[in-house]
Amino acid sequence: MSSSDEPAVPLGSGGLVRVRLDIGYDGTDFSGWAAQPGRRTVQGALQDALTTTLRIPVQLTVAGRTDAGVHATGQVAHLDVPAEIWSAESGGLVRHLAGLLPADVRVFAARAVPAEFDARFGALWRRYEYRISDADGGPDPLRRHAVLSHRRALDAAAMADAAEQLTGLHDFAAFCKRRKDNPDATTVRTLQQFAVARDGDEVVCTVRADAFCHSMVRSLVGALLAVGEGRRPAEWAATLLDRDRRADEITVAPAYGLTLVEVRYPPDGELAARGTATRAVRSRADGVR
Amino acid sequence: MSSSDEPAVPLGSGGLVRVRLDIGYDGTDFSGWAAQPGRRTVQGALQDALTTTLRIPVQLTVAGRTDAGVHATGQVAHLDVPAEIWSAESGGLVRHLAGLLPADVRVFAARAVPAEFDARFGALWRRYEYRISDADGGPDPLRRHAVLSHRRALDAAAMADAAEQLTGLHDFAAFCKRRKDNPDATTVRTLQQFAVARDGDEVVCTVRADAFCHSMVRSLVGALLAVGEGRRPAEWAATLLDRDRRADEITVAPAYGLTLVEVRYPPDGELAARGTATRAVRSRADGVR
Repeated sequence: MSSSDEPAVPLGSGGLVRVRLDIGYDGTDFSGWAAQPGRRTVQGALQDALTTTLRIPVQLTVAGRTDAGVHATGQVAHLDVPAEIWSAESGGLVRHLAGLLPADVRVFAARAVPAEFDARFGALWRRYEYRISDADGGPDPLRRHAVLSHRRALDAAAMADAAEQLTGLHDFAAFCKRRKDNPDATTVRTLQQFAVARDGDEVVCTVRADAFCHSMVRSLVGALLAVGEGRRPAEWAATLLDRDRRADEITVAPAYGLTLVEVRYPPDGELAARGTATRAVRSRADGVR
Repeated sequence: MSSSDEPAVPLGSGGLVRVRLDIGYDGTDFSGWAAQPGRRTVQGALQDALTTTLRIPVQLTVAGRTDAGVHATGQVAHLDVPAEIWSAESGGLVRHLAGLLPADVRVFAARAVPAEFDARFGALWRRYEYRISDADGGPDPLRRHAVLSHRRALDAAAMADAAEQLTGLHDFAAFCKRRKDNPDATTVRTLQQFAVARDGDEVVCTVRADAFCHSMVRSLVGALLAVGEGRRPAEWAATLLDRDRRADEITVAPAYGLTLVEVRYPPDGELAARGTATRAVRSRADGVR
Protein backbone atom coordinates (compact mmCIF):
# COMPACT_ATOMS: atom_id res chain seq x y z
CA MET A 1 0.00 0.00 0.00
CA SER A 2 2.85 2.37 -0.81
CA SER A 3 1.73 5.52 -2.57
CA SER A 4 5.01 5.86 -4.43
CA ASP A 5 4.00 3.01 -6.77
CA GLU A 6 0.81 4.72 -7.87
CA PRO A 7 1.42 8.42 -8.27
CA ALA A 8 -1.90 8.97 -10.14
CA VAL A 9 -3.96 8.06 -7.08
CA PRO A 10 -4.10 10.73 -4.38
CA LEU A 11 -3.52 8.86 -1.17
CA GLY A 12 -4.64 9.85 2.28
CA SER A 13 -3.29 8.53 5.55
CA GLY A 14 -3.21 4.76 5.89
CA GLY A 15 -3.23 4.07 2.15
CA LEU A 16 -6.81 5.20 1.74
CA VAL A 17 -8.12 7.01 -1.32
CA ARG A 18 -10.81 9.61 -0.77
CA VAL A 19 -13.51 9.16 -3.42
CA ARG A 20 -16.14 11.69 -4.45
CA LEU A 21 -19.49 10.42 -5.72
CA ASP A 22 -21.92 12.54 -7.76
CA ILE A 23 -25.39 11.24 -7.13
CA GLY A 24 -29.00 11.68 -8.27
CA TYR A 25 -32.22 10.20 -6.95
CA ASP A 26 -35.97 10.27 -7.19
CA GLY A 27 -36.85 10.70 -3.51
CA THR A 28 -40.44 9.47 -3.91
CA ASP A 29 -39.91 5.98 -2.56
CA PHE A 30 -37.05 6.71 -0.14
CA SER A 31 -37.29 7.57 3.57
CA GLY A 32 -34.77 10.33 2.94
CA TRP A 33 -30.98 10.19 2.72
CA ALA A 34 -29.92 9.00 6.15
CA ALA A 35 -29.68 5.25 6.71
CA GLN A 36 -32.25 3.98 9.22
CA PRO A 37 -32.84 0.38 10.28
CA GLY A 38 -35.76 -1.19 8.40
CA ARG A 39 -36.25 1.81 6.11
CA ARG A 40 -35.46 2.18 2.41
CA THR A 41 -33.00 5.09 2.31
CA VAL A 42 -30.69 6.55 -0.32
CA GLN A 43 -27.64 6.14 1.90
CA GLY A 44 -28.61 2.56 2.66
CA ALA A 45 -29.09 1.66 -1.02
CA LEU A 46 -25.77 3.25 -2.00
CA GLN A 47 -23.80 1.71 0.87
CA ASP A 48 -25.23 -1.73 0.05
CA ALA A 49 -24.24 -1.44 -3.62
CA LEU A 50 -20.79 -0.06 -2.77
CA THR A 51 -20.17 -2.80 -0.22
CA THR A 52 -21.08 -5.40 -2.84
CA THR A 53 -18.80 -3.81 -5.45
CA LEU A 54 -15.83 -2.99 -3.24
CA ARG A 55 -16.24 -5.93 -0.83
CA ILE A 56 -15.58 -3.69 2.20
CA PRO A 57 -17.95 -2.01 4.66
CA VAL A 58 -18.65 1.52 3.41
CA GLN A 59 -19.68 4.68 5.24
CA LEU A 60 -20.75 7.69 3.18
CA THR A 61 -20.49 11.34 4.23
CA VAL A 62 -22.98 13.48 2.32
CA ALA A 63 -23.31 17.16 1.40
CA GLY A 64 -27.05 17.44 1.99
CA ARG A 65 -28.99 15.03 4.21
CA THR A 66 -32.28 15.35 2.35
CA ASP A 67 -35.60 14.51 4.01
CA ALA A 68 -38.02 11.81 2.90
CA GLY A 69 -39.44 12.59 -0.53
CA VAL A 70 -36.84 15.20 -1.48
CA HIS A 71 -35.02 14.59 -4.77
CA ALA A 72 -31.46 15.25 -5.91
CA THR A 73 -29.78 15.75 -9.26
CA GLY A 74 -26.54 17.15 -7.81
CA GLN A 75 -25.95 15.38 -4.50
CA VAL A 76 -22.32 14.76 -3.48
CA ALA A 77 -20.89 12.26 -0.99
CA HIS A 78 -17.45 10.94 -0.13
CA LEU A 79 -15.99 7.72 1.17
CA ASP A 80 -12.52 6.30 1.79
CA VAL A 81 -11.36 3.24 -0.11
CA PRO A 82 -8.11 1.27 0.37
CA ALA A 83 -5.77 2.20 -2.46
CA GLU A 84 -5.40 -1.32 -3.88
CA ILE A 85 -9.17 -1.79 -4.06
CA TRP A 86 -9.60 1.60 -5.71
CA SER A 87 -6.97 0.75 -8.31
CA ALA A 88 -8.73 -2.48 -9.16
CA GLU A 89 -12.32 -1.25 -9.15
CA SER A 90 -12.34 2.41 -10.12
CA GLY A 91 -12.38 1.88 -13.89
CA GLY A 92 -15.71 0.06 -13.97
CA LEU A 93 -17.20 1.33 -10.72
CA VAL A 94 -19.90 3.63 -12.14
CA ARG A 95 -21.12 0.97 -14.60
CA HIS A 96 -20.99 -1.70 -11.94
CA LEU A 97 -23.05 0.44 -9.56
CA ALA A 98 -25.55 1.21 -12.35
CA GLY A 99 -26.20 -2.51 -12.63
CA LEU A 100 -26.62 -2.98 -8.88
CA LEU A 101 -28.56 0.11 -7.83
CA PRO A 102 -32.33 0.46 -8.15
CA ALA A 103 -33.32 2.80 -11.01
CA ASP A 104 -34.40 5.57 -8.64
CA VAL A 105 -30.85 6.25 -7.47
CA ARG A 106 -27.79 6.70 -9.69
CA VAL A 107 -24.11 7.38 -9.24
CA PHE A 108 -23.22 9.63 -12.17
CA ALA A 109 -19.50 9.84 -11.40
CA ALA A 110 -16.92 8.48 -8.97
CA ARG A 111 -13.42 9.92 -8.81
CA ALA A 112 -10.44 10.13 -6.50
CA VAL A 113 -10.03 13.53 -4.84
CA PRO A 114 -7.49 15.02 -2.43
CA ALA A 115 -7.73 13.64 1.11
CA GLU A 116 -8.83 17.10 2.27
CA PHE A 117 -12.02 16.92 0.23
CA ASP A 118 -14.99 16.73 2.60
CA ALA A 119 -18.44 16.45 1.00
CA ARG A 120 -20.13 17.88 4.09
CA PHE A 121 -17.76 20.40 5.65
CA GLY A 122 -15.98 21.38 2.47
CA ALA A 123 -19.00 22.68 0.56
CA LEU A 124 -19.08 26.39 -0.25
CA TRP A 125 -22.81 26.28 -0.85
CA ARG A 126 -25.81 24.09 -1.59
CA ARG A 127 -28.40 25.04 -4.21
CA TYR A 128 -31.94 23.73 -4.15
CA GLU A 129 -34.82 24.21 -6.57
CA TYR A 130 -38.44 24.08 -5.55
CA ARG A 131 -40.88 23.79 -8.47
CA ILE A 132 -44.58 24.58 -8.31
CA SER A 133 -47.21 24.28 -11.04
CA ASP A 134 -50.25 26.52 -10.65
CA ALA A 135 -51.67 25.66 -14.08
CA ASP A 136 -55.44 25.08 -14.07
CA GLY A 137 -54.92 21.68 -15.64
CA GLY A 138 -52.16 20.64 -13.25
CA PRO A 139 -48.48 19.78 -13.82
CA ASP A 140 -47.01 17.94 -16.79
CA PRO A 141 -47.63 14.26 -15.92
CA LEU A 142 -44.02 13.35 -16.74
CA ARG A 143 -42.84 15.83 -14.09
CA ARG A 144 -45.57 15.32 -11.51
CA HIS A 145 -43.32 13.53 -9.00
CA ALA A 146 -41.00 16.54 -8.69
CA VAL A 147 -43.33 19.52 -9.22
CA LEU A 148 -45.80 20.63 -6.54
CA SER A 149 -49.34 20.76 -7.89
CA HIS A 150 -50.86 23.97 -6.52
CA ARG A 151 -54.51 24.64 -7.25
CA ARG A 152 -54.44 28.42 -6.71
CA ALA A 153 -52.81 30.91 -9.09
CA LEU A 154 -49.55 32.34 -7.77
CA ASP A 155 -48.21 35.88 -8.06
CA ALA A 156 -44.58 35.07 -8.88
CA ALA A 157 -43.57 38.74 -8.77
CA ALA A 158 -44.81 39.11 -5.19
CA MET A 159 -43.02 35.88 -4.27
CA ALA A 160 -39.80 37.18 -5.82
CA ASP A 161 -40.17 40.40 -3.84
CA ALA A 162 -40.60 38.49 -0.57
CA ALA A 163 -37.67 36.22 -1.39
CA GLU A 164 -35.38 39.16 -2.08
CA GLN A 165 -36.09 40.53 1.40
CA LEU A 166 -35.02 37.23 2.99
CA THR A 167 -31.60 37.04 1.36
CA GLY A 168 -28.44 37.75 3.33
CA LEU A 169 -27.14 36.88 6.79
CA HIS A 170 -30.02 36.34 9.23
CA ASP A 171 -31.17 34.23 12.12
CA PHE A 172 -33.64 31.91 10.37
CA ALA A 173 -35.06 30.51 13.63
CA ALA A 174 -38.62 31.13 12.36
CA PHE A 175 -37.91 28.84 9.39
CA CYS A 176 -36.11 26.04 11.24
CA LYS A 177 -37.40 22.94 12.96
CA ARG A 178 -35.54 22.59 16.23
CA ARG A 179 -33.47 19.41 16.49
CA LYS A 180 -34.33 17.31 19.51
CA ASP A 181 -30.75 16.08 19.74
CA ASN A 182 -29.36 19.61 19.63
CA PRO A 183 -31.96 22.26 20.55
CA ASP A 184 -29.34 24.99 20.94
CA ALA A 185 -27.95 24.62 17.40
CA THR A 186 -27.45 27.96 15.71
CA THR A 187 -30.04 28.97 13.11
CA VAL A 188 -27.94 31.79 11.71
CA ARG A 189 -27.34 31.26 8.00
CA THR A 190 -26.32 33.29 4.96
CA LEU A 191 -28.97 33.00 2.27
CA GLN A 192 -26.81 33.81 -0.74
CA GLN A 193 -29.61 33.60 -3.28
CA PHE A 194 -33.38 33.27 -3.07
CA ALA A 195 -34.92 33.86 -6.48
CA VAL A 196 -38.34 33.18 -7.95
CA ALA A 197 -39.03 32.95 -11.67
CA ARG A 198 -41.68 31.56 -13.98
CA ASP A 199 -40.64 28.71 -16.28
CA GLY A 200 -43.69 28.11 -18.46
CA ASP A 201 -46.48 26.90 -16.19
CA GLU A 202 -44.06 26.37 -13.32
CA VAL A 203 -42.86 28.75 -10.62
CA VAL A 204 -39.23 27.94 -9.79
CA CYS A 205 -37.78 28.96 -6.41
CA THR A 206 -33.98 28.81 -6.34
CA VAL A 207 -32.38 28.81 -2.90
CA ARG A 208 -28.62 28.90 -2.32
CA ALA A 209 -26.87 29.06 1.04
CA ASP A 210 -23.69 27.96 2.76
CA ALA A 211 -25.88 25.56 4.71
CA PHE A 212 -29.48 25.09 5.78
CA CYS A 213 -31.08 24.20 9.08
CA HIS A 214 -33.74 21.51 9.27
CA SER A 215 -36.76 22.04 6.94
CA MET A 216 -35.51 25.55 6.15
CA VAL A 217 -35.94 25.46 2.36
CA ARG A 218 -39.45 24.03 2.56
CA SER A 219 -40.38 26.61 5.23
CA LEU A 220 -39.03 29.44 3.08
CA VAL A 221 -41.09 28.18 0.14
CA GLY A 222 -44.12 27.71 2.39
CA ALA A 223 -43.91 31.35 3.43
CA LEU A 224 -43.64 32.37 -0.22
CA LEU A 225 -46.75 30.37 -1.11
CA ALA A 226 -48.76 32.43 1.39
CA VAL A 227 -47.47 35.56 -0.34
CA GLY A 228 -48.04 34.18 -3.85
CA GLU A 229 -51.65 33.37 -3.07
CA GLY A 230 -52.21 36.88 -1.69
CA ARG A 231 -52.89 35.68 1.85
CA ARG A 232 -49.89 37.68 3.12
CA PRO A 233 -48.15 40.81 1.82
CA ALA A 234 -44.65 40.44 0.36
CA GLU A 235 -43.16 42.20 3.42
CA TRP A 236 -44.57 39.62 5.82
CA ALA A 237 -41.95 36.93 5.22
CA ALA A 238 -39.02 39.15 6.27
CA THR A 239 -40.81 40.26 9.46
CA LEU A 240 -40.53 36.65 10.65
CA LEU A 241 -36.74 37.07 10.87
CA ASP A 242 -37.34 38.81 14.23
CA ARG A 243 -38.53 35.56 15.81
CA ASP A 244 -36.26 33.47 18.00
CA ARG A 245 -38.19 30.26 17.43
CA ARG A 246 -40.14 28.46 14.74
CA ALA A 247 -43.11 30.44 13.36
CA ASP A 248 -46.23 28.29 13.57
CA GLU A 249 -48.01 30.25 10.84
CA ILE A 250 -45.57 28.98 8.21
CA THR A 251 -46.77 25.85 6.44
CA VAL A 252 -43.83 23.66 5.43
CA ALA A 253 -44.15 23.01 1.68
CA PRO A 254 -44.42 19.32 0.65
CA ALA A 255 -41.14 17.48 0.14
CA TYR A 256 -41.77 16.28 -3.42
CA GLY A 257 -41.38 19.71 -5.04
CA LEU A 258 -37.82 20.05 -3.72
CA THR A 259 -34.62 18.98 -5.48
CA LEU A 260 -30.98 19.43 -4.43
CA VAL A 261 -29.46 20.52 -7.73
CA GLU A 262 -25.88 21.55 -6.97
CA VAL A 263 -23.20 21.55 -4.28
CA ARG A 264 -20.18 23.74 -4.92
CA TYR A 265 -16.68 23.13 -3.55
CA PRO A 266 -13.56 25.28 -3.70
CA PRO A 267 -10.65 24.37 -6.00
CA ASP A 268 -8.57 21.43 -4.76
CA GLY A 269 -5.79 23.67 -3.42
CA GLU A 270 -8.17 25.43 -1.02
CA LEU A 271 -9.95 22.34 0.29
CA ALA A 272 -8.08 21.98 3.56
CA ALA A 273 -8.62 25.59 4.60
CA ARG A 274 -12.32 25.41 3.83
CA GLY A 275 -12.94 22.24 5.82
CA THR A 276 -11.16 23.61 8.89
CA ALA A 277 -13.06 26.90 8.78
CA THR A 278 -16.46 25.25 8.46
CA ARG A 279 -15.78 22.82 11.28
CA ALA A 280 -14.70 25.61 13.59
CA VAL A 281 -17.95 27.50 13.03
CA ARG A 282 -20.43 24.69 13.04
CA SER A 283 -19.13 21.43 14.46
CA ARG A 284 -20.98 21.79 17.75
CA ALA A 285 -24.09 23.13 16.05
CA ASP A 286 -24.63 19.98 13.97
CA GLY A 287 -26.71 22.12 11.69
CA VAL A 288 -24.98 21.59 8.37
CA ARG A 289 -27.42 20.08 5.90
CA MET B 1 -79.68 26.80 -29.75
CA SER B 2 -79.51 29.70 -32.15
CA SER B 3 -76.00 30.87 -32.85
CA SER B 4 -77.13 34.47 -33.20
CA ASP B 5 -77.55 34.69 -29.43
CA GLU B 6 -73.97 33.62 -28.69
CA PRO B 7 -71.68 35.14 -31.25
CA ALA B 8 -68.56 34.30 -29.22
CA VAL B 9 -69.08 30.56 -29.57
CA PRO B 10 -68.25 29.15 -33.01
CA LEU B 11 -71.15 26.86 -33.84
CA GLY B 12 -71.04 23.86 -36.11
CA SER B 13 -74.01 22.12 -37.66
CA GLY B 14 -76.74 21.06 -35.25
CA GLY B 15 -75.78 23.56 -32.57
CA LEU B 16 -72.56 21.72 -31.74
CA VAL B 17 -69.35 23.41 -30.70
CA ARG B 18 -66.11 21.81 -31.81
CA VAL B 19 -63.69 21.78 -28.89
CA ARG B 20 -59.92 21.33 -29.06
CA LEU B 21 -58.14 19.70 -26.11
CA ASP B 22 -54.40 20.00 -25.47
CA ILE B 23 -53.30 16.94 -23.57
CA GLY B 24 -50.28 15.43 -21.82
CA TYR B 25 -49.71 12.02 -20.31
CA ASP B 26 -47.19 9.69 -18.76
CA GLY B 27 -47.77 6.60 -20.90
CA THR B 28 -46.14 4.21 -18.43
CA ASP B 29 -49.33 2.81 -16.96
CA PHE B 30 -51.59 3.17 -20.02
CA SER B 31 -52.28 0.58 -22.72
CA GLY B 32 -51.81 3.34 -25.27
CA TRP B 33 -54.23 6.00 -26.50
CA ALA B 34 -57.03 4.01 -28.11
CA ALA B 35 -59.91 2.91 -25.89
CA GLN B 36 -60.08 -0.88 -25.49
CA PRO B 37 -62.51 -2.84 -23.34
CA GLY B 38 -60.99 -3.83 -20.00
CA ARG B 39 -57.78 -1.83 -20.56
CA ARG B 40 -56.62 1.41 -18.94
CA THR B 41 -56.20 3.77 -21.89
CA VAL B 42 -55.69 7.51 -22.25
CA GLN B 43 -58.75 7.89 -24.46
CA GLY B 44 -60.83 5.89 -21.99
CA ALA B 45 -59.71 7.95 -18.99
CA LEU B 46 -60.37 11.23 -20.82
CA GLN B 47 -63.75 10.17 -22.18
CA ASP B 48 -64.83 9.00 -18.72
CA ALA B 49 -63.87 12.33 -17.14
CA LEU B 50 -65.46 14.36 -19.96
CA THR B 51 -68.68 12.32 -19.77
CA THR B 52 -68.84 12.98 -16.02
CA THR B 53 -68.22 16.70 -16.47
CA LEU B 54 -70.39 17.34 -19.51
CA ARG B 55 -73.02 14.68 -18.71
CA ILE B 56 -73.11 13.48 -22.34
CA PRO B 57 -71.42 10.56 -24.08
CA VAL B 58 -68.14 11.78 -25.55
CA GLN B 59 -66.07 10.50 -28.48
CA LEU B 60 -62.59 11.93 -28.96
CA THR B 61 -60.71 12.21 -32.27
CA VAL B 62 -56.97 12.38 -31.70
CA ALA B 63 -53.94 13.65 -33.62
CA GLY B 64 -51.59 10.78 -32.74
CA ARG B 65 -52.81 7.37 -31.59
CA THR B 66 -49.81 6.56 -29.44
CA ASP B 67 -48.90 2.97 -28.54
CA ALA B 68 -48.73 1.52 -25.05
CA GLY B 69 -45.99 3.18 -23.01
CA VAL B 70 -45.53 6.19 -25.31
CA HIS B 71 -45.83 9.61 -23.63
CA ALA B 72 -47.23 12.94 -24.79
CA THR B 73 -46.67 16.54 -23.82
CA GLY B 74 -48.35 18.01 -26.91
CA GLN B 75 -51.18 15.66 -27.84
CA VAL B 76 -54.30 17.20 -29.43
CA ALA B 77 -57.84 15.84 -29.68
CA HIS B 78 -61.25 17.22 -30.59
CA LEU B 79 -64.84 16.55 -29.63
CA ASP B 80 -68.22 18.09 -30.34
CA VAL B 81 -70.27 19.53 -27.50
CA PRO B 82 -73.84 20.90 -27.64
CA ALA B 83 -73.61 24.69 -27.52
CA GLU B 84 -75.67 25.14 -24.34
CA ILE B 85 -73.52 22.64 -22.45
CA TRP B 86 -70.33 24.29 -23.70
CA SER B 87 -71.58 27.71 -22.59
CA ALA B 88 -72.30 26.40 -19.11
CA GLU B 89 -69.20 24.27 -18.60
CA SER B 90 -66.37 25.77 -20.60
CA GLY B 91 -65.25 28.28 -17.98
CA GLY B 92 -64.30 25.72 -15.37
CA LEU B 93 -63.75 22.70 -17.60
CA VAL B 94 -59.95 22.42 -17.33
CA ARG B 95 -60.02 22.75 -13.54
CA HIS B 96 -62.91 20.34 -13.28
CA LEU B 97 -61.08 17.75 -15.39
CA ALA B 98 -57.91 18.25 -13.31
CA GLY B 99 -59.89 17.16 -10.27
CA LEU B 100 -61.36 14.11 -12.01
CA LEU B 101 -58.47 12.77 -14.06
CA PRO B 102 -55.70 10.56 -12.68
CA ALA B 103 -52.41 12.45 -12.23
CA ASP B 104 -50.77 10.69 -15.20
CA VAL B 105 -53.04 12.38 -17.74
CA ARG B 106 -53.81 16.11 -17.91
CA VAL B 107 -55.88 18.42 -20.10
CA PHE B 108 -53.81 21.60 -20.28
CA ALA B 109 -56.35 23.60 -22.33
CA ALA B 110 -59.83 23.27 -23.81
CA ARG B 111 -61.15 25.83 -26.28
CA ALA B 112 -63.80 26.24 -28.94
CA VAL B 113 -62.41 26.10 -32.49
CA PRO B 114 -63.97 26.44 -35.95
CA ALA B 115 -66.09 23.45 -36.97
CA GLU B 116 -63.53 22.68 -39.69
CA PHE B 117 -60.83 21.96 -37.13
CA ASP B 118 -59.98 18.26 -37.22
CA ALA B 119 -57.37 17.02 -34.76
CA ARG B 120 -56.52 14.04 -36.95
CA PHE B 121 -56.94 15.09 -40.57
CA GLY B 122 -56.20 18.77 -40.07
CA ALA B 123 -52.67 18.38 -38.69
CA LEU B 124 -49.82 19.73 -40.82
CA TRP B 125 -47.29 17.63 -38.94
CA ARG B 126 -46.56 15.67 -35.79
CA ARG B 127 -43.28 16.01 -33.92
CA TYR B 128 -41.91 13.29 -31.65
CA GLU B 129 -38.83 13.20 -29.45
CA TYR B 130 -36.99 10.03 -28.56
CA ARG B 131 -34.52 10.40 -25.68
CA ILE B 132 -31.69 7.99 -24.91
CA SER B 133 -29.17 8.10 -22.06
CA ASP B 134 -25.90 6.32 -22.72
CA ALA B 135 -24.24 7.60 -19.54
CA ASP B 136 -22.24 4.94 -17.68
CA GLY B 137 -24.25 5.64 -14.55
CA GLY B 138 -27.63 5.55 -16.28
CA PRO B 139 -30.32 8.21 -16.77
CA ASP B 140 -31.33 10.88 -14.26
CA PRO B 141 -33.73 9.01 -11.92
CA LEU B 142 -36.33 11.79 -12.20
CA ARG B 143 -36.45 11.27 -15.98
CA ARG B 144 -36.03 7.51 -16.10
CA HIS B 145 -39.62 6.81 -17.18
CA ALA B 146 -39.21 8.83 -20.38
CA VAL B 147 -35.53 8.32 -21.29
CA LEU B 148 -34.24 5.04 -22.69
CA SER B 149 -31.39 3.64 -20.62
CA HIS B 150 -28.81 2.40 -23.11
CA ARG B 151 -25.74 0.62 -21.76
CA ARG B 152 -23.47 1.15 -24.76
CA ALA B 153 -21.93 4.49 -25.74
CA LEU B 154 -23.56 6.06 -28.79
CA ASP B 155 -21.93 7.98 -31.64
CA ALA B 156 -24.45 10.79 -31.99
CA ALA B 157 -22.69 12.24 -35.04
CA ALA B 158 -23.04 8.94 -36.94
CA MET B 159 -26.69 8.76 -35.89
CA ALA B 160 -27.27 12.30 -37.14
CA ASP B 161 -25.65 11.38 -40.44
CA ALA B 162 -27.90 8.35 -40.85
CA ALA B 163 -30.97 10.37 -39.88
CA GLU B 164 -30.20 13.06 -42.45
CA GLN B 165 -30.15 10.42 -45.21
CA LEU B 166 -33.65 9.27 -44.23
CA THR B 167 -35.33 12.67 -44.44
CA GLY B 168 -37.62 13.55 -47.33
CA LEU B 169 -40.36 11.76 -49.28
CA HIS B 170 -39.83 8.00 -49.21
CA ASP B 171 -41.63 4.70 -48.97
CA PHE B 172 -40.93 3.75 -45.34
CA ALA B 173 -42.20 0.17 -45.75
CA ALA B 174 -39.04 -1.16 -44.07
CA PHE B 175 -39.87 0.89 -40.96
CA CYS B 176 -43.62 0.15 -40.77
CA LYS B 177 -45.52 -2.64 -39.11
CA ARG B 178 -48.20 -3.80 -41.51
CA ARG B 179 -51.74 -3.32 -40.21
CA LYS B 180 -53.77 -6.51 -40.16
CA ASP B 181 -56.95 -4.58 -40.82
CA ASN B 182 -55.44 -2.75 -43.79
CA PRO B 183 -52.37 -4.54 -45.21
CA ASP B 184 -52.37 -2.42 -48.38
CA ALA B 185 -52.13 0.92 -46.57
CA THR B 186 -49.56 3.21 -48.11
CA THR B 187 -46.26 3.55 -46.29
CA VAL B 188 -45.16 6.60 -48.27
CA ARG B 189 -44.46 9.49 -45.94
CA THR B 190 -42.60 12.78 -45.97
CA LEU B 191 -40.06 12.85 -43.15
CA GLN B 192 -39.73 16.61 -42.77
CA GLN B 193 -37.12 16.49 -40.03
CA PHE B 194 -35.01 13.75 -38.47
CA ALA B 195 -32.34 15.29 -36.28
CA VAL B 196 -30.05 13.89 -33.60
CA ALA B 197 -28.34 16.01 -30.97
CA ARG B 198 -26.70 15.55 -27.60
CA ASP B 199 -28.39 17.23 -24.63
CA GLY B 200 -26.00 16.60 -21.74
CA ASP B 201 -25.91 12.86 -21.15
CA GLU B 202 -28.93 12.30 -23.42
CA VAL B 203 -29.12 11.74 -27.15
CA VAL B 204 -32.29 13.38 -28.47
CA CYS B 205 -33.83 12.20 -31.75
CA THR B 206 -36.38 14.65 -33.15
CA VAL B 207 -38.72 13.28 -35.80
CA ARG B 208 -41.27 15.40 -37.66
CA ALA B 209 -43.56 14.23 -40.45
CA ASP B 210 -46.98 14.90 -41.91
CA ALA B 211 -47.93 11.49 -40.51
CA PHE B 212 -46.38 8.22 -39.43
CA CYS B 213 -47.23 4.62 -40.13
CA HIS B 214 -47.40 2.07 -37.33
CA SER B 215 -44.24 1.85 -35.16
CA MET B 216 -42.36 4.05 -37.65
CA VAL B 217 -40.70 6.41 -35.17
CA ARG B 218 -39.50 3.60 -32.93
CA SER B 219 -38.22 1.69 -35.97
CA LEU B 220 -36.35 4.75 -37.23
CA VAL B 221 -34.75 5.17 -33.79
CA GLY B 222 -34.02 1.45 -33.63
CA ALA B 223 -32.10 1.69 -36.91
CA LEU B 224 -30.19 4.68 -35.57
CA LEU B 225 -29.22 2.77 -32.42
CA ALA B 226 -27.52 0.13 -34.59
CA VAL B 227 -25.57 2.94 -36.28
CA GLY B 228 -24.80 4.72 -33.01
CA GLU B 229 -23.33 1.56 -31.50
CA GLY B 230 -21.18 1.03 -34.59
CA ARG B 231 -22.90 -2.22 -35.57
CA ARG B 232 -23.94 -0.66 -38.89
CA PRO B 233 -22.47 2.14 -41.01
CA ALA B 234 -24.37 5.42 -41.24
CA GLU B 235 -25.34 4.66 -44.87
CA TRP B 236 -27.07 1.43 -43.92
CA ALA B 237 -30.31 3.00 -42.66
CA ALA B 238 -31.08 4.72 -45.98
CA THR B 239 -30.44 1.52 -47.97
CA LEU B 240 -33.49 0.05 -46.22
CA LEU B 241 -35.70 2.50 -48.11
CA ASP B 242 -35.45 0.13 -51.12
CA ARG B 243 -37.46 -2.53 -49.29
CA ASP B 244 -41.14 -3.05 -49.99
CA ARG B 245 -41.83 -4.65 -46.63
CA ARG B 246 -40.76 -4.48 -43.01
CA ALA B 247 -37.03 -5.03 -42.44
CA ASP B 248 -36.56 -7.77 -39.85
CA GLU B 249 -33.07 -6.56 -38.92
CA ILE B 250 -34.47 -3.36 -37.41
CA THR B 251 -35.12 -3.63 -33.68
CA VAL B 252 -38.06 -1.44 -32.67
CA ALA B 253 -36.86 0.86 -29.86
CA PRO B 254 -38.76 0.56 -26.55
CA ALA B 255 -41.89 2.69 -26.21
CA TYR B 256 -40.93 4.51 -23.01
CA GLY B 257 -38.25 6.71 -24.64
CA LEU B 258 -40.81 8.23 -27.03
CA THR B 259 -42.88 11.38 -26.46
CA LEU B 260 -45.30 13.16 -28.81
CA VAL B 261 -44.26 16.76 -28.21
CA GLU B 262 -46.15 18.84 -30.78
CA VAL B 263 -48.89 18.73 -33.40
CA ARG B 264 -49.08 21.71 -35.75
CA TYR B 265 -52.25 22.94 -37.48
CA PRO B 266 -52.76 25.63 -40.12
CA PRO B 267 -54.34 28.97 -39.22
CA ASP B 268 -58.10 28.83 -38.68
CA GLY B 269 -58.87 30.26 -42.13
CA GLU B 270 -57.14 27.37 -43.90
CA LEU B 271 -58.56 24.55 -41.79
CA ALA B 272 -61.27 23.41 -44.18
CA ALA B 273 -58.91 23.14 -47.15
CA ARG B 274 -56.36 21.16 -45.16
CA GLY B 275 -58.85 18.64 -43.83
CA THR B 276 -60.26 17.96 -47.29
CA ALA B 277 -56.83 17.51 -48.84
CA THR B 278 -55.63 15.09 -46.16
CA ARG B 279 -58.78 12.99 -46.35
CA ALA B 280 -58.49 12.70 -50.13
CA VAL B 281 -54.94 11.36 -49.87
CA ARG B 282 -55.23 9.08 -46.89
CA SER B 283 -58.76 8.20 -45.90
CA ARG B 284 -58.63 4.71 -47.39
CA ALA B 285 -55.11 4.15 -46.14
CA ASP B 286 -56.06 4.54 -42.47
CA GLY B 287 -52.41 5.25 -41.85
CA VAL B 288 -52.59 8.63 -40.19
CA ARG B 289 -51.07 8.41 -36.74
